[in-house]
Amino acid sequence: MDDATLHEAGELEALRRFLPLLPEGDATALGPGDDAAVVAAPDGRFVVTTDTMLEGADFRLGWSRWHDLGWKAVATNLIDVAAMGARPTSLVVALAVPPSTRIAALEELARGLADAIAAMAPGVGVVGGDLGTARHAVIAVTAFGDLEGRAPVLRSGARPGDAVWVVGDLGLAATGLRHLFVEAVDEAAEPDRDAAELLRAGAHGASIAAQLAPVTPIGAGTLLADLGATAMLDVSDGLALDAARVARASGVRIALDGAAVAAASPDAALPAALHGGEDHALLVTLPAGVVPPAELAGHPVRRIGLVEPAEVQGDVTLDGEPLEPRGWDPYRAG
Amino acid sequence: MDDATLHEAGELEALRRFLPLLPEGDATALGPGDDAAVVAAPDGRFVVTTDTMLEGADFRLGWSRWHDLGWKAVATNLIDVAAMGARPTSLVVALAVPPSTRIAALEELARGLADAIAAMAPGVGVVGGDLGTARHAVIAVTAFGDLEGRAPVLRSGARPGDAVWVVGDLGLAATGLRHLFVEAVDEAAEPDRDAAELLRAGAHGASIAAQLAPVTPIGAGTLLADLGATAMLDVSDGLALDAARVARASGVRIALDGAAVAAASPDAALPAALHGGEDHALLVTLPAGVVPPAELAGHPVRRIGLVEPAEVQGDVTLDGEPLEPRGWDPYRAG
Repeated sequence: MDDATLHEAGELEALRRFLPLLPEGDATALGPGDDAAVVAAPDGRFVVTTDTMLEGADFRLGWSRWHDLGWKAVATNLIDVAAMGARPTSLVVALAVPPSTRIAALEELARGLADAIAAMAPGVGVVGGDLGTARHAVIAVTAFGDLEGRAPVLRSGARPGDAVWVVGDLGLAATGLRHLFVEAVDEAAEPDRDAAELLRAGAHGASIAAQLAPVTPIGAGTLLADLGATAMLDVSDGLALDAARVARASGVRIALDGAAVAAASPDAALPAALHGGEDHALLVTLPAGVVPPAELAGHPVRRIGLVEPAEVQGDVTLDGEPLEPRGWDPYRAG
Repeated sequence: MDDATLHEAGELEALRRFLPLLPEGDATALGPGDDAAVVAAPDGRFVVTTDTMLEGADFRLGWSRWHDLGWKAVATNLIDVAAMGARPTSLVVALAVPPSTRIAALEELARGLADAIAAMAPGVGVVGGDLGTARHAVIAVTAFGDLEGRAPVLRSGARPGDAVWVVGDLGLAATGLRHLFVEAVDEAAEPDRDAAELLRAGAHGASIAAQLAPVTPIGAGTLLADLGATAMLDVSDGLALDAARVARASGVRIALDGAAVAAASPDAALPAALHGGEDHALLVTLPAGVVPPAELAGHPVRRIGLVEPAEVQGDVTLDGEPLEPRGWDPYRAG
């Protein structure tokens, strides 16, 4: 039966094999199986974020294993919950895959979800989902968290005098994507699975893993909030662009230190660190004098700049020079 | 600019035009724009359900207007929240559409979301979303509700002696779908928009509207819970199949009365009422002696059967004869 496709086995059989692999979760009052689930929200509020991973635009089945897709869905959605200063509690997953997809592949995806939760956010439950068919795979995750009495940490709270910190390495995921685009394609420029697996097992393994199955500092969110974080976000579109979002929302300048940014991107070139995407590091501003531990949730914590009064909208500088808030093109960058 | 496509205008411009059209919502503590939203959950729990509408499997752009898609996404997701006995509070929408989609089409979809909320669940907010591109359109909605101190109404609570009621008409949406499949296709059996619009304006208008832009009895959910509903669900896969779900979960027999089912499906043939899909009526069991109003939330309330002790798993009878829990094939049924 391991080779049966969704088309052959049907949705009910697929769900019968998929659902038991998912963790129930500490906050789950009622799990999958009824019209809706019920999740505890002891704070009297809940945090919610939604994000969709689309085959083609966001992943290639020629590079990502199914386990990776489940893992990355957890890693990238729960970090958005963490960036509010909330503890992730649960998520729902809506899947649409081609009818020719093997049920075993869906099981691998479920194990990816479960393994990522166990590694990065133990106690989180998968409380519901939806399974359908589409020509190209779609993985839509909506994730929830509990503020545990805290005020949410917004992008708009940075104040002149605060220090700018980053939790996690910058530029690695974008570097991995560039390796894949350059070294893991066939003559028609299509993804080559064998080449991708070889790259992943080789010297570039860390960057490939950061791209395909990232480990994100989910546990650091509540810790930073409790340290007094004034603004925080998940760096998903590159430091330059995401720092500009904080600068604009807070009405401040983010003055970055080039040497410190380079130190926060030990395995990537500066353009990848500044303009690469999918770091899923936490960019956080803390009041002057607050020094966080050197490591949070297993990720390095580094000071990379200072908050100053703004002179222009979305004001970000690198060593005093204006920094353009643009993304990174893996086809072009060096 | 009304004719600009998503590809031409870009995601930011599309969101700049899409987001202001969405209602903020009474329970929204923090709306779109940060890493996540914050929603009030005064009950200390929240109800959550997710469902995906996929172009091809669930809708055809040749039949559905973009306004319909937004409307139906609200109508079909919030009824799942209502079926738990909860008051809907908010939802998030993840959209993926072809890059050639006009921004004006996305605006129509947003108006469909807003108009459906105003008509069926005023006070509900759209608190977040995600916009991407895909070859075929995907609309993934996750909806939330507040139990307001009630116990959730499950599928498993029906007891022998309860009466079986349905809120809303049966078979109409499936009848509309059959009209579309038979009368609104071109010579290649592909959807024909002009024919669909003509059908909708004609004698079959009610069934076409029930299929493309249904009005569901969302407001009836909390009222039925407060009347003492022992089991409740949204009839989405046909009365026969959904009654079997209640029978199985509750360990009872659902004994349906044929004449009463016919009366609950005034504009549909009995096969469509029993085995058609997408009614989005509420099927509810109430203790003997509890007589609900003849109309709830603008929808007729009709008694269609009785809960009896089970003799077999998933036991449903129609006038005493076993009723097969199968869905309805619009290509075949009469």
